Formats: sequence, C-alpha cells, structure tokens
Amino acid sequence: MDERIAICPGSFDPITKGHLDIIKRASAMFDKVIVVAMNNADKKFFFTEEQRVSMMERSVKEAKLKNVQVDSYNGLLADYMRENNAVAIVKGLRAVSDFEYEFQMALLNKKLYPKAETVFLTTSQENLYLSSSMVKSIASANGDFSEFVPACIYNDIKNRFEKKGCSL
Amino acid sequence: MDERIAICPGSFDPITKGHLDIIKRASAMFDKVIVVAMNNADKKFFFTEEQRVSMMERSVKEAKLKNVQVDSYNGLLADYMRENNAVAIVKGLRAVSDFEYEFQMALLNKKLYPKAETVFLTTSQENLYLSSSMVKSIASANGDFSEFVPACIYNDIKNRFEKKGCSL
Amino acid sequence: MDERIAICPGSFDPITKGHLDIIKRASAMFDKVIVVAMNNADKKFFFTEEQRVSMMERSVKEAKLKNVQVDSYNGLLADYMRENNAVAIVKGLRAVSDFEYEFQMALLNKKLYPKAETVFLTTSQENLYLSSSMVKSIASANGDFSEFVPACIYNDIKNRFEKKGCSL
Amino acid sequence: MDERIAICPGSFDPITKGHLDIIKRASAMFDKVIVVAMNNADKKFFFTEEQRVSMMERSVKEAKLKNVQVDSYNGLLADYMRENNAVAIVKGLRAVSDFEYEFQMALLNKKLYPKAETVFLTTSQENLYLSSSMVKSIASANGDFSEFVPACIYNDIKNRFEKKGCSL
Amino acid sequence: MDERIAICPGSFDPITKGHLDIIKRASAMFDKVIVVAMNNADKKFFFTEEQRVSMMERSVKEAKLKNVQVDSYNGLLADYMRENNAVAIVKGLRAVSDFEYEFQMALLNKKLYPKAETVFLTTSQENLYLSSSMVKSIASANGDFSEFVPACIYNDIKNRFEKKGCSL
Amino acid sequence: MDERIAICPGSFDPITKGHLDIIKRASAMFDKVIVVAMNNADKKFFFTEEQRVSMMERSVKEAKLKNVQVDSYNGLLADYMRENNAVAIVKGLRAVSDFEYEFQMALLNKKLYPKAETVFLTTSQENLYLSSSMVKSIASANGDFSEFVPACIYNDIKNRFEKKGCSL
Repeated sequence: MDERIAICPGSFDPITKGHLDIIKRASAMFDKVIVVAMNNADKKFFFTEEQRVSMMERSVKEAKLKNVQVDSYNGLLADYMRENNAVAIVKGLRAVSDFEYEFQMALLNKKLYPKAETVFLTTSQENLYLSSSMVKSIASANGDFSEFVPACIYNDIKNRFEKKGCSL
Repeated sequence: MDERIAICPGSFDPITKGHLDIIKRASAMFDKVIVVAMNNADKKFFFTEEQRVSMMERSVKEAKLKNVQVDSYNGLLADYMRENNAVAIVKGLRAVSDFEYEFQMALLNKKLYPKAETVFLTTSQENLYLSSSMVKSIASANGDFSEFVPACIYNDIKNRFEKKGCSL
Repeated sequence: MDERIAICPGSFDPITKGHLDIIKRASAMFDKVIVVAMNNADKKFFFTEEQRVSMMERSVKEAKLKNVQVDSYNGLLADYMRENNAVAIVKGLRAVSDFEYEFQMALLNKKLYPKAETVFLTTSQENLYLSSSMVKSIASANGDFSEFVPACIYNDIKNRFEKKGCSL
Repeated sequence: MDERIAICPGSFDPITKGHLDIIKRASAMFDKVIVVAMNNADKKFFFTEEQRVSMMERSVKEAKLKNVQVDSYNGLLADYMRENNAVAIVKGLRAVSDFEYEFQMALLNKKLYPKAETVFLTTSQENLYLSSSMVKSIASANGDFSEFVPACIYNDIKNRFEKKGCSL
Repeated sequence: MDERIAICPGSFDPITKGHLDIIKRASAMFDKVIVVAMNNADKKFFFTEEQRVSMMERSVKEAKLKNVQVDSYNGLLADYMRENNAVAIVKGLRAVSDFEYEFQMALLNKKLYPKAETVFLTTSQENLYLSSSMVKSIASANGDFSEFVPACIYNDIKNRFEKKGCSL
Repeated sequence: MDERIAICPGSFDPITKGHLDIIKRASAMFDKVIVVAMNNADKKFFFTEEQRVSMMERSVKEAKLKNVQVDSYNGLLADYMRENNAVAIVKGLRAVSDFEYEFQMALLNKKLYPKAETVFLTTSQENLYLSSSMVKSIASANGDFSEFVPACIYNDIKNRFEKKGCSL
C-alpha cells in the first residue's frame, strides 16, 4: 500500500494543546501528517501567517512528532489534498455545533475531491472547552493560559497581547 | 378560498441552486410565491441590493417559475407579510443549527403577525452543504462553483471576485 | 390548480391539543387535510386503533374543522400519499431531536414518493412540552391532564387508566 | 451557612425582559445576586458601558428586586467570582446552541475557579425567542419592541436608534 | 429566608459516581437536598425499589453528605415538590440530547408547579460518559466498572448480574 | 510501522448499503478491517447471530473487499480491541443524535482501552436516511427495500418477514 498522508487543516490562531493532541493521535494512525494553516481571504487572523506557522513548527518539534510537517496554504482545501495526494482530512470534534459545520464541509470536500475521507476524532476530555478563541479571551483579560498552549509559544502569545492590547 | 401567497425571505447574497430548489417546491404548493431579498441594516452584503435582485430575477426566469415574483424590502418581515396578505413564510432547513435559529424566528414572527405560518422544507439531499457563503468561499479561492449556482448568474459572481478580490 | 391535499400522519395515542393545533393550521393552508393514524407493526399502542380513530374524529368535529378527514392505515406512508394523490406531509416540530428524525424521514419519503413535500410547522409556544407520552405519564400518576387534550376525549383517557392501571 | 452569592454575567446590550426573568428567579434562590455587564475587549457593543449599566440599574429597580445589585467588569469572570466569593454563575438557556457554548464555558470556569457552580435555568416559555439582538433587529426596522424590554428603558433604545440609525 | 430545599429526582438504577457528584454540588448550594427514586409505572427497572433506595442511602452516607436525604415516590414530581415545599429540581446535564428532554420536562414542571425552578448543573468532565446504563452494559459484559460507582454498592451490582445474568 | 487494524462494530441487524459504504472507505484507510457483530445481552435482535454474520460475510464478499474480515463477539468492545491489537474503531455518523451517543462511547472506550482511537466518517449523502431499522420498517410494510441492502441478502430479509410477519 502507498504511503498514507493525512492533512490537519485549521486556522491555528494560535495552535493549542487541543490541536496538538489531535495531531499526535493522527500521526499514530497515518504514515505522514501535514498540519496546514489555511489562509481564507474572508477571515481576520490575530497572528500573521508567519507567526502562526512559526508557532506550529516549534510546537510540533517540541512534541517530537517525527512524521508531522507544517505548511500554509492560500486556496481550496480540496486542491491542497489533490496536490499532496492525501487520503484523509483529520478534524477534532468538541461539540455538536462543530459537528454540523464539519459535516457539511466533509460532504463538500468529498464532492470536490472524492479520493479523500474526512476523519473525525473526538477531542480528549481535558480539552473539551479548549479553543484558540478561549485562549485569546483569557490572554486578553490577563488570565493564566499557560496550561492550554505548548510551553514554547507561551511568550509569543503574551507578547502579542502586550503590544496590541485588546484589539482582537 | 382566497389566493394563497407564500414568502421566501433571505439574503440571496448570491442566490444558489439550493434556494432555487426551495422556491420551486414552494411554487408547487402555493398560488403565488414572492422571493424577497431582505436588507437588514445590521448585515453586510457582498453584492449590492440591485445585484442580488437582478440575479434572483434572472434565476427565477431561467427556471421558468410562472407564479414566482422577486422583490426586496427594508424592514420587518412581519410587516411585509401583512402588506402582502401572505399566509406562509417558506424556509429551507439544512441542519440543526439552522433549525434552532429559524424556530426562534418562527415563534417571533407568529407573535408579530399571527395570521401567517412559517413552513419548513428540508433541503434536497444534493444541496445539504450548499450555501451562499460556501459559494463565496470557493469562488474567492478560484475554485469551480459552477455546479452550485444558476448558469445565468455564474459570470456575475466570477466578475465580482475578480474586481474586488478577496475582501469579503 | 388541482385540489391540494395534505396528510397529517401520527400515532395519535392519544390525540392532544398539540396535534390539533397543527391540524388546524394545516387546514388553513391546504384544500383538504387527512389525519391518519398509522399502525406500524413494530409499535405497541396504548389505545386500540378504533379508540384512537374515534378520539381523533370527535376531536376534529369538536374543533369544527370542515376540510379535515380522519383515517387509519397499515402500510408505508409513501403508499398512502400516492393513493390519495397528496402533495404534502405536515408535521409539527417541538425540538431538535424531533427535527433530526423527521429530517431523515422526509428524505426517505421524498425518495419513495417524490411528488410530495414534507412540510414542518413549529409547535405553538404553549405546546412545546406537550406530547402523547407526557399526557399518559401525567394520567398514570393521577395528575390533571385536562388542559392538554380536547375536552371530548378526557374521559376516554381517564377510563383507560382506571381499567388497565399503570401497565403502559 | 454563609451568605450565598450568585452572579448573572452578560452583555446586556440592552437588558431584556428575558434577562430580568432569569435575574428574578435567581434572586429567589440565592441570598444575593450580582448582575454584571462584562466588557470583553473583543466584542463590539451597541450601547456604551455607562448606558448598559444605567439601563440595568433602572430595570432592576423597576422590578423591585431587593437582593440584586448591578455591576460591570473588565476581566475574567472567574476572577470576578473569586473577588466576590460567589458560589454560582446563573445563566438562562433558550436553545441547544446556547447550551453547547455555555456548557464549554461552564467547564472552563470550573477549571479556573473550582469553588463555584454554573447553574442553568430554562428561559420561560414566553421568552423563548427573546434576545438583545432580536430587540435591536426590531428596533432598527422601526418595529414595536415595547413588549420585550422593561418599560423604563424603552426610550433609551428608541433614542439610540434615532440618533445612530441602522449602523449596528 | 426560609430553608431552601432542592430535589434530585431520578431512576438511580443504580446510583453512579456521576449522580453523587451532582448531589454533592447541590448540597453545597441548598439548605437541604432530597434524592428521590421515582417509580414511574411505565418504566422497567433492573434493581427493585428497595435495592435502589438502599444503594442510594449507603452511597450518600459514604460520601458524608449531611444535608442530604434519600426517598422514593410513586407519582408526579410536581406533587412531590409541593408536598415537600421544595424550591428547586436539580438535574445534571451531560449532552444536548439530555438537555432537550429536560428542557421540556422543566417547562412542564413549571406549568404544574410554578413555585419551583429546574436548575441544571453540567456533569463534571470526568463523568461525561457515565450513566447507569453504561455501568450495566459494562457489568453485563464482565468488564470492570469499579471506578464508576461508589465503593459500597459495587457488590450489589456484581451480585445482581451473577444472579440474573444478562437478562437486562 | 505495524499492520494497522481497524474495527467496525455494530448490530448489523441487518447489514445495509450504508454500513457497506463505511466498511469500504475504512478498508481503503487501514491495512485490515474487522467487521464485528456485537451481541449485547440487553438488546433484542430481529435476526439471529448466525443470520447476521452470514449476511455480513456474503455482503463483504460481494463487494470484493479483500482486507475485510467478519466476526461476532459477546463482551466489551474495548476487550475485543485489545485482543485484536486494533488501533481504531470506525463508525459512520448520520446525524447529531448519532454523534452525541457515539461521542460518549468514544470517551468511554478511550478510558477502557487508551491505545485505540474512535474514528468517525460521515455517511455518504445518498445514505443519510438509511438505517437497519428503516429497512425493517419498509420491509414489514411490504415496501421495496431492494435499493438499500446488498443484493445478495435481499431474500434473507424478505423471507424473515414472510415467516415471522410484523412481530419486530
């Protein structure tokens, strides 16, 4: 059988321990995992593309995930799948509302690129309430978010909020 | 029995084949159907009111729906219902999250104008993932969205993205 | 346009004021409404088919709904639709869990009989928690359920519980 | 047992009769209730902090709720709970989508401040479709929203829309 | 203020650590908590009323919850509330499907006994998948369920399955 | 990397084209897939274990899925996973209500056997309303269910209903 490549797409604005948990579990199931920061034109990000990718790279390295690569992409996920000959999109699900949107995206991506599957993993119990926006909410209110992100990117987030203040 | 008039309200930003499917099915159940582009003050549209209405009119014409009219309105849907002596609001439902919001709107509209019903149709299977925002996402990433919109408005959307680029 | 016939299928075990509200609203939208007690082989009913139909007939008569008929059927709803040349199935929705099941049934019925639509009405606010099984729960605990069912069938339910006790 | 303090946090942009109903019911269950306008940095409000607090104070006074105080806060809810030695966060739930988000917030707040509980009350039936944004939608379309807000703040909302128009 | 009494109703067939967690948290918020095994006529229980109540009593004692009583009841919850002059029904919520049913029950109970509130607590993270039926599933398959129930009732459950086997 | 084995557990009472679609897609992602008929003691099946397994085996053979085996098991899924050294449980999701239950089962199985993941695939669009119980409903009402099950088991189902009639 060929090398099986899975894609973990997302905003990663910033990457959290919740993302990292999904990436790690995906890396145990597939031969190679590519974590991709998607740059939708219609979305405002808090961190720049460079910052997001840099935090992703350091987090993956810190977690010692050998078969995981980091990338970023401007365009349709289905096109990225095709270019990389990927067999699966891996997404973590926290809640029913996640599920509904992701269900529709999965049907759309199946339509646009029938060769790949969307594969859903359930968020680990301790990450159920964890999301990039919760991290940003806590950080913007000067709360302690150190438990929720990889240690190596803690200062990136801290600094970003000190510089720009609350203007999310 | 009097002529039964149903209203299909929406943003139609732009109209999709999913909308058209609901309109068509509504037109088979009621004597007259008015498709109305609502212009909520608190919503940003990608297409102007004129563009949206023009695309709606050409799509309805292309689909040869005789008892269907196109209109636009600034104000409360309940007031529009009253002015047009309509008996039903027709909405398509794709998902649970749609349903919840629409359920609340239906209760509100019943309160504001008790004479009319909100009638929900289920989206056809092939349109489950289809929405105006998905069309815009694909178009903004230069993907092929031709299957998802009426043929006669394909170029309107294409041109709009070429002119304004990604600034959704 | 031909006479438009809508079907309100259900167990009606027993009929409640919630059912009657949906039937009444359907009767204002269609030329004729047939309320059908479905007799699925795999379902245990508390009231016999005769009892259920009798309660339905008296309730519809008490509500003075002229264009409403009562019937019962052993078989597929899609076949009943075809035999009666019906254009719509009308269902009331109370909650998300209702919606999901009914959504799947609507897709199935569209597949089995493409000529008819499933049309969903939202339960009126005062009937949100009202269902046949809640009526039976209250009745079996000797609570007062008179507000939840048509007056003319109150004694039918009362008697049924006195005779058979709690063995739902 | 010590005095039991509950917190009702929210945007209150503006306060509605739905909020007031929850506050009233909380005040019957706890010794003291503090209604707090949260000022998240990442949220745009239609009314200023002063306007929101003023409307809250007059509404609570009009409703004659003796053990209820009004406050505003910039920061983490968990920190506010700790500072006030509160035992409960009280939230009203209208719908499944509310529930999911609030469920995650409740788990997060339990993590950040384990001494307090999040307590959910169900919205009263007549307030099921009532929210601040619905009030603003109706007001911006010149509809009659008088039934949905405390009488004493009706003019505040009316004036705000006359001054600023539709620029929500 | 009068003594505030809360009721924790349920099947407790058998009581789990998830139930006990909710009871404990309720006991910190109210002056007195009564845990009531409801005996709906239309429900089949795996353990007898005596067994269920005995397991509840020993579990509450083991957890050293001073202001908690155990009881059982045949009848309407609303009537039990009235008889005990209770101000609140306390329920734990695990999931959206729980929420929907409980939401309807809360509206019904508010209707039948307006003086009391239904108060929802979120299940603790470690109990999210824990329910009486899961305990029974694991026990019937000879799995280790010791982590999920109070230590003092472990043998009750074990013995029940050895005696009756799998005939749930 | 070792051979990666995935398990597709279920009732398969009977197997449908929806199941087969999930099995097929799983077989493209893993080295080996075992489809297991679970025999929960607390569940009544319409077909015997032998009938269910026989239908599964013929369906898998008809679909020419080389790396797929069929099995049945009395016991905990987590134990079966351990015995077979499996890395994943594969489940198809049709709807939110499926998702909630499966989410809880996934957390439980992660607890009971941490080495394996539960992996969710979305049901293909044409199978959204397809389930074993819908097949049985249609068959019991003498409807045409041939499109919904593998051709090779059509007669098994037909005969079963002719023999036992409607007593589901």
